Amino acid sequence: MTNPILVEVTRGPLVESTHRGAVAVSDAEGRLRIAVGDVERPIFPRSALKPVQAVPLIESGAAEKFGLTDEEIALACASHSGEPQHTSRVAAWQERIGCSVADLACGPHRPMHEGTATQMIRSGEKWTPLHNNCSGKHTGFMTLARGLGAPVEGYQEVDHPVQRAVEATLTQLAALSGPLPYGVDGCTVPNFALSLAALARAMAAIADPTGLSPARAAACRRVVSAMIANPDLVAGTGRPCTQLMRQASDIAVKTGAEGVYVALLPALGLGVALKIDDGASRAAETAIAAALVALGAIKDEGPAHALSHAPVLNTRNVHVGERRVPKGLFA
Amino acid sequence: MTNPILVEVTRGPLVESTHRGAVAVSDAEGRLRIAVGDVERPIFPRSALKPVQAVPLIESGAAEKFGLTDEEIALACASHSGEPQHTSRVAAWQERIGCSVADLACGPHRPMHEGTATQMIRSGEKWTPLHNNCSGKHTGFMTLARGLGAPVEGYQEVDHPVQRAVEATLTQLAALSGPLPYGVDGCTVPNFALSLAALARAMAAIADPTGLSPARAAACRRVVSAMIANPDLVAGTGRPCTQLMRQASDIAVKTGAEGVYVALLPALGLGVALKIDDGASRAAETAIAAALVALGAIKDEGPAHALSHAPVLNTRNVHVGERRVPKGLFA
Repeated sequence: MTNPILVEVTRGPLVESTHRGAVAVSDAEGRLRIAVGDVERPIFPRSALKPVQAVPLIESGAAEKFGLTDEEIALACASHSGEPQHTSRVAAWQERIGCSVADLACGPHRPMHEGTATQMIRSGEKWTPLHNNCSGKHTGFMTLARGLGAPVEGYQEVDHPVQRAVEATLTQLAALSGPLPYGVDGCTVPNFALSLAALARAMAAIADPTGLSPARAAACRRVVSAMIANPDLVAGTGRPCTQLMRQASDIAVKTGAEGVYVALLPALGLGVALKIDDGASRAAETAIAAALVALGAIKDEGPAHALSHAPVLNTRNVHVGERRVPKGLFA
Repeated sequence: MTNPILVEVTRGPLVESTHRGAVAVSDAEGRLRIAVGDVERPIFPRSALKPVQAVPLIESGAAEKFGLTDEEIALACASHSGEPQHTSRVAAWQERIGCSVADLACGPHRPMHEGTATQMIRSGEKWTPLHNNCSGKHTGFMTLARGLGAPVEGYQEVDHPVQRAVEATLTQLAALSGPLPYGVDGCTVPNFALSLAALARAMAAIADPTGLSPARAAACRRVVSAMIANPDLVAGTGRPCTQLMRQASDIAVKTGAEGVYVALLPALGLGVALKIDDGASRAAETAIAAALVALGAIKDEGPAHALSHAPVLNTRNVHVGERRVPKGLFA
C-alpha cells in the first residue's frame, strides 16, 4: 500500500514537494482511533522509543535507588539540544552514579542548539558524547545497569540486561511477542522495529497505565509527568517538542530521527505515532501538530498553528510558500 | 500518478525510509531516452536552472563586453559553498562591473562549507549576501543588466529585462510556449516551473546545441565548457556536483534545492533532469549518480559509486545501513 500525502510544501502557485506517511492513534487496549496509511508495516521508532526505554529505569527501582529527579527522568526521555542546561545536568547525574563521559557508548555530535555550537566554536571547545542528544538516555541505561547489578560496560549490546529489559518492556506495552527485529541507532544502541499501530498502543499504555501492574503503572505515570514538567529538558530552546509541550501543558511529545513522532495524551487515554516515509523532520513536525489539533489535544494557535501551517521563507525572509497538511486528512 | 521509489535507505534488516521521484533523460529534439515516474507534471528546477540563466549573459554579448572569464561563467552557474575561492572571485567580478555586495538582491546565509563557516565564527566575521550560494548567478544577472543597458536595481523582478531574457531562453530551449508559472526562489529571483521532460530537453539543447542559432549555440557551448573546466567553482570542496564533474571530466552536473538534479552530457547529446518528490538532497545525490552510471556517462567507481551506494554511519562511525537505488530502476 502506498501511504497518502501527509504534508505538502507549496511555492507560489504550485505544490513543490510532498511528504507521504502514516499515522496511528490508539488507546491502551489497541483500539485504533485514527489509522491513516499503512500502520501495520514495521518502522524504527528511533528516539521516539525513549519514553519506553525509561520505564524499566523506574520500574526496576534503579531510579529510586540513585535518587533520580524528575529532571533526570525527563533527560532520560530526551533528544536534547546539547545546551548547558542539558549537559550540566547529565554530567552531574553521571558523577552521582560513579560514571563519566568516558562510559558513554554514543559518539559526539554538534549540539543541535546553534547558539551553543557557535559559543563552543568561538571558545575552541570540542563537542563530546555528552553533547550527543541521547546522552541522557545513555545515562539512564548506565543507571539501570548499576541498579540491576550488571556491568556498565557493554550496556549498548542487544544481549545486555539493560537492552533485554527494554525489549521486554516494549513488547509487553505494545502487546507483541518478541524477539523484535532491530537496527543500530545513531547512538549505537539497538532500536527495535514495530508497527505504528503497536507503537501508538505502547504510548497509550504509558499515558493510560490503568491496566498494568502497580509497579509498571507507577513507572509509566512518572515518565509522563516528568516529561510534562520539563519540556525544556526533553528537547531544547525553540524545538517543536518543547514548544508543543509548553503550549498544551498536559501532553508529552517526542520526536525521532527519520520523520518519526509520538505523543502521549493522558487526558484522552491515547497514544499517537507517525512516520514520514522519507524521513523528513519538517514534515513530521507539521503532521504531529496537525494531528494533535485534530484530536483536540492542543489548540489551533501559537506553536501548534505555526507548525501545522509553517511559512516557507527565503534568504530575504520573503514568504514564498507554506508547509501544511492536505485538507480533510484527519477528518 | 504516484512516482516510484527512486532511493531507499536501509537500517539493519529493514528499509527505514524511501524517496519517490521522477527522472527524465532527453535529447535536444525532445526524444525521451528514459522516463521514470511522472515527467510531465510541472516542477521548480530551483538552482538547476542556472545553466539556462547563464545563456543570455553570453548570448547577449554582455559576457564579452565585460571580459568574463570561464571561472566567472562557472560561478554564474554555481550554487557555491561560500569558500574564499568563490567569494573572492565574485567580489572582484562585481567591482569590475561597477557593482558591490550592496546591489545583491539575495539575502545572506551561512556558507555551506563547514570549514569556512567555522573560521568566520572564530574570527567574528558575519556572512553577507556574497556568501549566498547564488551570488555568482546574481552577479551574472547584474552583468546582463549592464550589457542590456537596463538598471541593475530590480534585476530580480519578473518583468525586468534580465528575467524576461531568462524566461524567453528557457521557453525556447525547452520548446515550450510561455508565460511559465513561477515562484520566488530562495534568493528572491523568479524560478520558472516546467516539466522534467522539458527541463531535460533544455539541458540537452545546451549540451548539444547544433540545432540552435550560431550565437545561442556558442553561448551554450561556453556554459558547458566553463562548468566542466571549473568543477570546484560550480559547487565546492567535497560537494557531489564537484566530485562527479571531477571524476568524469566531460559532464556538467548541477543540483537544485528540494531534491532536483540536472546533468548536461555533451558526448551523448543528452540532458538529465530528476526531482525527488519530498525534496531530499541525499536522495537526489544518490539518484543522479545512479542515473549517470546507468547512462554510461560515468564509471561505477569513486564518488559515483560512493554516492549511489552511500553508507549510513552513526555517531560512532558504525555502518548501520545504506542509501541506494532499487535494483532494476534504470534497466
